[in-house]
Amino acid sequence: MENLQIIHTQIVEWLNEIVPIIKGSLSEELIIETKLNRKDLVTNIDKKVQDFLVQKIKGTYPAHIIVGEESPELKIRDKREHVWIIDPIDGTANFVKQQDHFCILIAYYENDIGKLGYIFDVMNDDLYYAIENKGAFVNDEKLPIQKEVTLQEGLISADVRDWAGKECFGRLAEESFGIRYFGCGGIDSIHVITGKFVAFATSKSGPWDLAAQLVFAKELGLKASHFDGRKLHYLDRGDWVLSNKGAYDDLINILKGWNC
Amino acid sequence: MENLQIIHTQIVEWLNEIVPIIKGSLSEELIIETKLNRKDLVTNIDKKVQDFLVQKIKGTYPAHIIVGEESPELKIRDKREHVWIIDPIDGTANFVKQQDHFCILIAYYENDIGKLGYIFDVMNDDLYYAIENKGAFVNDEKLPIQKEVTLQEGLISADVRDWAGKECFGRLAEESFGIRYFGCGGIDSIHVITGKFVAFATSKSGPWDLAAQLVFAKELGLKASHFDGRKLHYLDRGDWVLSNKGAYDDLINILKGWNC
Repeated sequence: MENLQIIHTQIVEWLNEIVPIIKGSLSEELIIETKLNRKDLVTNIDKKVQDFLVQKIKGTYPAHIIVGEESPELKIRDKREHVWIIDPIDGTANFVKQQDHFCILIAYYENDIGKLGYIFDVMNDDLYYAIENKGAFVNDEKLPIQKEVTLQEGLISADVRDWAGKECFGRLAEESFGIRYFGCGGIDSIHVITGKFVAFATSKSGPWDLAAQLVFAKELGLKASHFDGRKLHYLDRGDWVLSNKGAYDDLINILKGWNC
Repeated sequence: MENLQIIHTQIVEWLNEIVPIIKGSLSEELIIETKLNRKDLVTNIDKKVQDFLVQKIKGTYPAHIIVGEESPELKIRDKREHVWIIDPIDGTANFVKQQDHFCILIAYYENDIGKLGYIFDVMNDDLYYAIENKGAFVNDEKLPIQKEVTLQEGLISADVRDWAGKECFGRLAEESFGIRYFGCGGIDSIHVITGKFVAFATSKSGPWDLAAQLVFAKELGLKASHFDGRKLHYLDRGDWVLSNKGAYDDLINILKGWNC
């Protein structure tokens, strides 16, 4: 078992070092490549941030395993004593098109138990983090445990990419108080974590999109699962929701019943 | 003809006086009423801000006409020498549920010509404004004329309220680079004005939702019209788009062709 407070302090230092890398890049020409399709982007800055974090983690904890969105060669092994999951830039399309509404996601797990989770909203300089059994924080201010709010009373974020035109999306819009969408899972999740939204639901994710949020969920009394209610493992892929407890059952009923 | 620079200075002063009214209300219990349906909200703060602005305008310019979202008794007359259009809180649902992502919209017209437009993002303390023939600004920094970007290359904001589940919404999601939605027309419009989105399209609006944006459109070389391409008048109601010139034709073809 590592000392979580020490790792936390290191991560905060690393994130502070990343700020000038990202902000300095905003005035430069990005090198943009596409991955699976024309909308699936990766830039030289995604890679630079990933390399920076991998180097820091490997330099400090050589035996730890790292799973990163931009490094498919770093595969998870059977031995999962110390696992880091990182998304150097979550919301790359927003980074490229808006220079805003993107974030860095980091999670640290020991023997499949979430220990630390980070969502760093770089442009607003807001660091959200969760530490096992210590709670969740924004810039060192403790976030309250979420009181229950129903789906009918709450705003939800739903991933518009795949649902546009689908009937289930209409049901979500009608049943909830309204749909919003930032187009960056980490930023959308922040709105659930802070109680501004009652849920975030998305259909295509990897471990780097959800591992940090699972640590927050435990500390804040939020629910997280697959659309069909199945337990969500931090190394899973596919669909998942992060939800206020009071909205969860109605949300899952729509996601299951309307073939989302 | 009034001196626009004098009016501009007055409006900025008034907006500064509104900030403590709104920010002070965030720690108090709001009085919330519904209008047309359970999701159409108005609060005591909407009314307070509207009353404040009406009092200021009437006190300074007794002969001017005011059209405000929360004052249906203030109707537009035939004589339109001096017309103010105000939305005291655009995005009331966000104000209530998020305490963020709402704004104040103000427009001033003389003989049907847009002279001044304001979008005030209260929580970020960012004032966007446009002055006829002078350009558009954010906090006194001049905004550049928008260079042309295609729909395929740009993010768009589309009002999810009415379109969820509709086929045209799926077309928009597919053709554009991606859909985003803040749920506040003024905040969504800011993202078009600053070039972060190529378009904002919404189906249910009143003059207070679009009059300010029309002043920005002229100064920044943006297109604005109804979905079917009809010219948009600042006192119109219904559907409308604010769009980058390079994205406009493709956007209108989808909005017309897919029965949005």
